[in-house]
Amino acid sequence: MKKHIVMLPGDGIGPEVMDSAKMVLNTIAEEFSHSFTFESQDIGGIAIDRQGTPLPAETSAACKKADAVLLGAVGGPKWDSNPSHLRPERGLLGIRKELGLFANLRPIKGFEKLLHASPLKEEVVKGSDLLIVRELTGGLYFGTPSERRDNGQSAVDTLFYSRAEIERIVDKAFQCAKQRRGQLTSVDKANVLESSKLWREVVEEKRQQYPDVAVEHVLVDAAAMKLITNPSQFDVIVTENMFGDILSDEASVLTGSLGMLPSASLREDGFGLYEPVHGSAPDIAGKGTANPVAMILSAAMMLRHSFGLNEEANVIEETVESILNGGFHTADIKAAGGQKVGTKEMTQKIIDSI
Amino acid sequence: MKKHIVMLPGDGIGPEVMDSAKMVLNTIAEEFSHSFTFESQDIGGIAIDRQGTPLPAETSAACKKADAVLLGAVGGPKWDSNPSHLRPERGLLGIRKELGLFANLRPIKGFEKLLHASPLKEEVVKGSDLLIVRELTGGLYFGTPSERRDNGQSAVDTLFYSRAEIERIVDKAFQCAKQRRGQLTSVDKANVLESSKLWREVVEEKRQQYPDVAVEHVLVDAAAMKLITNPSQFDVIVTENMFGDILSDEASVLTGSLGMLPSASLREDGFGLYEPVHGSAPDIAGKGTANPVAMILSAAMMLRHSFGLNEEANVIEETVESILNGGFHTADIKAAGGQKVGTKEMTQKIIDSI
Ligand SMILES: CC(C)[C@H](C(=O)O)[C@@H](O)C(=O)O
Ligand SMILES: CC(C)[C@H](C(=O)O)[C@@H](O)C(=O)O
Repeated sequence: MKKHIVMLPGDGIGPEVMDSAKMVLNTIAEEFSHSFTFESQDIGGIAIDRQGTPLPAETSAACKKADAVLLGAVGGPKWDSNPSHLRPERGLLGIRKELGLFANLRPIKGFEKLLHASPLKEEVVKGSDLLIVRELTGGLYFGTPSERRDNGQSAVDTLFYSRAEIERIVDKAFQCAKQRRGQLTSVDKANVLESSKLWREVVEEKRQQYPDVAVEHVLVDAAAMKLITNPSQFDVIVTENMFGDILSDEASVLTGSLGMLPSASLREDGFGLYEPVHGSAPDIAGKGTANPVAMILSAAMMLRHSFGLNEEANVIEETVESILNGGFHTADIKAAGGQKVGTKEMTQKIIDSI
Repeated sequence: MKKHIVMLPGDGIGPEVMDSAKMVLNTIAEEFSHSFTFESQDIGGIAIDRQGTPLPAETSAACKKADAVLLGAVGGPKWDSNPSHLRPERGLLGIRKELGLFANLRPIKGFEKLLHASPLKEEVVKGSDLLIVRELTGGLYFGTPSERRDNGQSAVDTLFYSRAEIERIVDKAFQCAKQRRGQLTSVDKANVLESSKLWREVVEEKRQQYPDVAVEHVLVDAAAMKLITNPSQFDVIVTENMFGDILSDEASVLTGSLGMLPSASLREDGFGLYEPVHGSAPDIAGKGTANPVAMILSAAMMLRHSFGLNEEANVIEETVESILNGGFHTADIKAAGGQKVGTKEMTQKIIDSI
């Protein structure tokens, strides 16, 4: 199989972990006789520094022509006081919108061997294996008007959803649930918001098409509680953009393995952008200590979701698990025992085992 | 001191825990020679059943004439499929707005003796003692338009804040921080939302007036993580209505003592409505097993914030703590050891010790 991949390393530890993913993908290409070609483009802070904008036209164009996109991370204190249009995050929001990546998939699973690094008690977090499906191109982060009013003395943002936008993400979530344990939790604030009422209506309609999926509705405030008190009760959670932003980050720290969590942002046709959940971590950038696992697992998600290469994806995932089970971990896992390794060493161990 | 208190017992376990609070307040009145008079009014589901509306005019009028209001809980499955204007929650949103209760204060503290009931590891949650200050009458839950569009095929909600609305809640939070450990965390999504940018500006301006309070800004998604990984880093958190809704519920389960958490919803002049954080718990209503502590501690907050009766409030709080330290707990605390008691017994123990 021949595939062209655009890499957007971005800021902070982005370039380091991107190197790791590229090395792993090259190994997979060799082992399975594929041909992956790579092209690197700027996004975020580095794009602002080099090209004066967080999302250069050349970057967008390259992504649109690619078979898939890998993204490292964007942002850092250097650009924090920039005006809105010159902030690294704009690059990320922009590329999601331009590519139509409406479905953000965030699987969260505890690695048995790392559960001791969780802030939760082991008996609470044990067995947790959930997937958050977040709507990514609608809602409050994109609605208009979003502006100052009354000479800057007030401000407004708009939460807007069309039925079609809700239908496609809910559909995606049902499909995921069907392939997993057949349980879907839809999160909204239907006791207060109009958009949430529409959301709930759509879920109720769609469930007719998926009679083998069990559906429950949970209010966002209750969901924020349940994720902590009983995370293993969830299979697939589907929710709108902002609730998904908050809940998926909340969920990402439950298993103690934030540095291991990948994500996929998908379009209807399977095209996607893949990025680790952890951010740019400017404090450890360039030190060679960053955890490359989330980026490597994001590459595995790319193989599965955009290229249909399930076996290759499985090989990466199983290899990572076996290395972690072998006791190797990077500095982000604060726990006694095991052997601490750097970014390069961790990557090499994974490559050697593939 | 003579004070007139309106009680809104509401639904589920509301009436039971309200009885407990009333008994404790009567004991305090006797011991300290105050005269508290009580009047009960309908709100929520019971108001719908009896008077056809979740917030009867008589209830509003009574609250406006009172010195303070105690609320039990609203809601239950019975009214879940009602149309918007006939939902119990409307009563709660309505009374907050009508009384101008813009500042919701939610103190969250771990009771040493109950920390073992926390889903978090004891070393993570230990020492946590934070106050969430949530804006309660603005933002997405009240903004207009909030409606269906395109023949019901789309929906919109509006997040609106004026500078004045932000200033008064931020001021309140700074005052709280000053009286506590002098640390304020303002939570927003200023990398995306216009309203959050205005919010951050106001916080930056206000901090000039409170040079002895240390201020940090945290994005809402990061805040959702940090509450779990390191809750004891926070002193006072201030945030807008919806973020506050989600984060305060998330925070409420950290210490394992949800049934112990009170809240105050205040106006500028100190008038307030006081309610437990736990909901109406319809599954255990009428069984005599509900935990009355959150309601009793809400009454203590009333004595302190609306009546200025600090000593009396302290007596209640210290008594509750000593009873809990004595090993007595209601059925909501799932843990070995101690002695399980019912609502009435717990209340009596507290009264006997006052
Ligand atoms: C950087 C920011 C705009 C972004 C978001 O909120 O969507 C990030 O928090 C994420 O979750 O991917
Ligand atoms: C019942 C609901 C409208 C309310 C809110 O979200 O404000 C509740 O969740 C709360 O937090 O007091």
